[in-house]
Amino acid sequence: MAEKAILLIMDGLGDLPAPVKTPLEAAKKPNMDALAKKGMQGMMSTLGRGVVPGSDTAHLQILGYALDRYYCGRGPLEALGAGMQLREGDVAFRANFATIEGNMITDRRAGRLDNASAKLLEKDANARIQDVEVIFRASTEHRGALVLRGPGLSPQVSPTDSHREGAFTPAKPLDASDGARKTAEIVNEFTRMVHARLEGSDVNKRRMRDGKKPANIILLRGAGIMGKAPKFSEMHGIRGACVAGGALYKGVARYAGMDVPDVKGATGDAGTDLKAKGLAALEALQKNDFVFVHVKATDSFSHDGNAKGKTQFIEKVDKELIPALAGNGAALFITGDHSTACVRKAHTGCEVPVLAYYAGGRKDGLKKFGESSAMHGGLGHIEGKDVMLIILNMIGKGKMCGS
Amino acid sequence: MAEKAILLIMDGLGDLPAPVKTPLEAAKKPNMDALAKKGMQGMMSTLGRGVVPGSDTAHLQILGYALDRYYCGRGPLEALGAGMQLREGDVAFRANFATIEGNMITDRRAGRLDNASAKLLEKDANARIQDVEVIFRASTEHRGALVLRGPGLSPQVSPTDSHREGAFTPAKPLDASDGARKTAEIVNEFTRMVHARLEGSDVNKRRMRDGKKPANIILLRGAGIMGKAPKFSEMHGIRGACVAGGALYKGVARYAGMDVPDVKGATGDAGTDLKAKGLAALEALQKNDFVFVHVKATDSFSHDGNAKGKTQFIEKVDKELIPALAGNGAALFITGDHSTACVRKAHTGCEVPVLAYYAGGRKDGLKKFGESSAMHGGLGHIEGKDVMLIILNMIGKGKMCGS
Repeated sequence: MAEKAILLIMDGLGDLPAPVKTPLEAAKKPNMDALAKKGMQGMMSTLGRGVVPGSDTAHLQILGYALDRYYCGRGPLEALGAGMQLREGDVAFRANFATIEGNMITDRRAGRLDNASAKLLEKDANARIQDVEVIFRASTEHRGALVLRGPGLSPQVSPTDSHREGAFTPAKPLDASDGARKTAEIVNEFTRMVHARLEGSDVNKRRMRDGKKPANIILLRGAGIMGKAPKFSEMHGIRGACVAGGALYKGVARYAGMDVPDVKGATGDAGTDLKAKGLAALEALQKNDFVFVHVKATDSFSHDGNAKGKTQFIEKVDKELIPALAGNGAALFITGDHSTACVRKAHTGCEVPVLAYYAGGRKDGLKKFGESSAMHGGLGHIEGKDVMLIILNMIGKGKMCGS
Repeated sequence: MAEKAILLIMDGLGDLPAPVKTPLEAAKKPNMDALAKKGMQGMMSTLGRGVVPGSDTAHLQILGYALDRYYCGRGPLEALGAGMQLREGDVAFRANFATIEGNMITDRRAGRLDNASAKLLEKDANARIQDVEVIFRASTEHRGALVLRGPGLSPQVSPTDSHREGAFTPAKPLDASDGARKTAEIVNEFTRMVHARLEGSDVNKRRMRDGKKPANIILLRGAGIMGKAPKFSEMHGIRGACVAGGALYKGVARYAGMDVPDVKGATGDAGTDLKAKGLAALEALQKNDFVFVHVKATDSFSHDGNAKGKTQFIEKVDKELIPALAGNGAALFITGDHSTACVRKAHTGCEVPVLAYYAGGRKDGLKKFGESSAMHGGLGHIEGKDVMLIILNMIGKGKMCGS
């Protein structure tokens, strides 16, 4: 009987038929289909029927962290994922290097700034403003995280990143508290300061000379205040690790106190080294009862409306990752955090297919892993909150309620 | 249309395929399969997906008693089942006669003590300690229940029965309250006293002479404090009775204020007189709208890892019990309280199959009652809390919500 379990989340896995088959159905994936023949499928509405999940909320819920108690906003999770140490009460943001001309944001990603340049610019975004320490860390490309540390801060401030190009809007307090007012002031002072510093930087002078967009402002969104969550091992009674490339997913795992090994080649994009992730998962399984493996590109292709790319990436996962995960005796739970429809280029509230297999477990007689099968699967319709309980039961480590 | 209903719970009914069919699927059970053809199946996660239920919590929930309001621990249910009268505030335990040598428990069941000997030893286990009345009642074989009645008691004490042989551990308070400290003291003084009395008893002298293990200590577990629950008839608007052999199940029914007739030959094991239980159910149905019939051996065989025994017992139920239950016009709801996997010898959080039939009700077109069918059944996936509402609806006695 399986004593350990692997949860594979292909981000944004579920999709709509386009026009006949979804990418998961269109993909040639003999390894996943072999698991489908031996196990059970079902459909998951991560946060409840019809609700459109974000990646942050979806992952927290799936790992057993109820949102009403433990959701602290995206910022702290991004900051943790970028390797920053957070303290309770820190207010953190997801940050983007961007390009501003006059008052207009002309590129929210500063031409997808390269990592090397971002690292050179990092120091310009660290400062002390009033009694608040401002800590910035660049992560991948134009992305980064910003942490405000000081007394009396609040996450109740509007984002300076409005998710689209156009006129820049300063942060505003979202409630009447002193903390919200103070935090908005700090954010706006930071924005002015970093803009002035970046404008004069050598990196940007060189980029302008080369005809590239300058990374001359940092935009913020996803404000959240760092809270305290019980460790995964306390919550579930098993040791857990996470193998992921994307910062957010590592951040969720760190927030849950899981082991998050650095995996060379795990990039969180389509070029990620899936074989390296498989090996890392097997290694993590030595010291842990549970490994959460995350791949991101299924979601990224969906946001780009690229169903073919999504299909091919699922085929790559099937070929390069599944054999390692399925060949070691561990129970396997394969799903997505939510559906992302290529035709909409957006997350949807459609259920996401689930495939569960462990040696000696029940079978539902279905032959192929996909939305059209899973909606008739033996697991029926589950929610994100059920996932860890089902996994614990698969490996015989569920706590009995009663006697 | 059916106006009365029977709920048959085969304890621990659900199972894993071992290796191809589960015991329920392997069993030849023409009577249940005939009901399947005329009714609907589904899957039940008694306490929610993946949760591993105990027998006490599962039955309370199925009978409509929400655990957060009405679960009082196993002890009071066992004591009620053993025929003891409980008062609000009594602290009760499940008790076992056991064998201790020096400080080591060498047999948790004192060689499965016989009923007659247990009855002879009963008086040695009744006492007054401080201001607390200690009341013991032997039930079947080595089993019994212990009630502490007095001021300021608490169920927050650790068990002296650790569920395995080995060094004896005295009870400890589980919180800092005076009640927990006092109750632990009483338990430990009781244990010393009863050990001294039992050591010197004629019954044990005779057992030693015959080469049998002495029943020279009483171990306690499942501490709970007797609470107050609404009567079944108030909660559901119908009169209910229970036909069971096992003490726990009778205890749950008594806690719910149901009629619990004594049924000669209903033993709660594989030798139980199923025909007598069928007749008792029909008789109970004369004065009641609802009868809960419980059989235990399906669970016991599972705990022993005996899939063949479980299969044969299901066949016996089909032959000797189902005809009586199915032949009287009552609606029938057949399920287990949870799954118990023979291969794991333990309760699991796997869903348990459900079969519901009433004349004129819907059909789902499935042919055989079993896990592989039920996961595709027309009832879908339900929880324990849904059972009584579904049954009330089957007999047209559901209360309208709204107008």
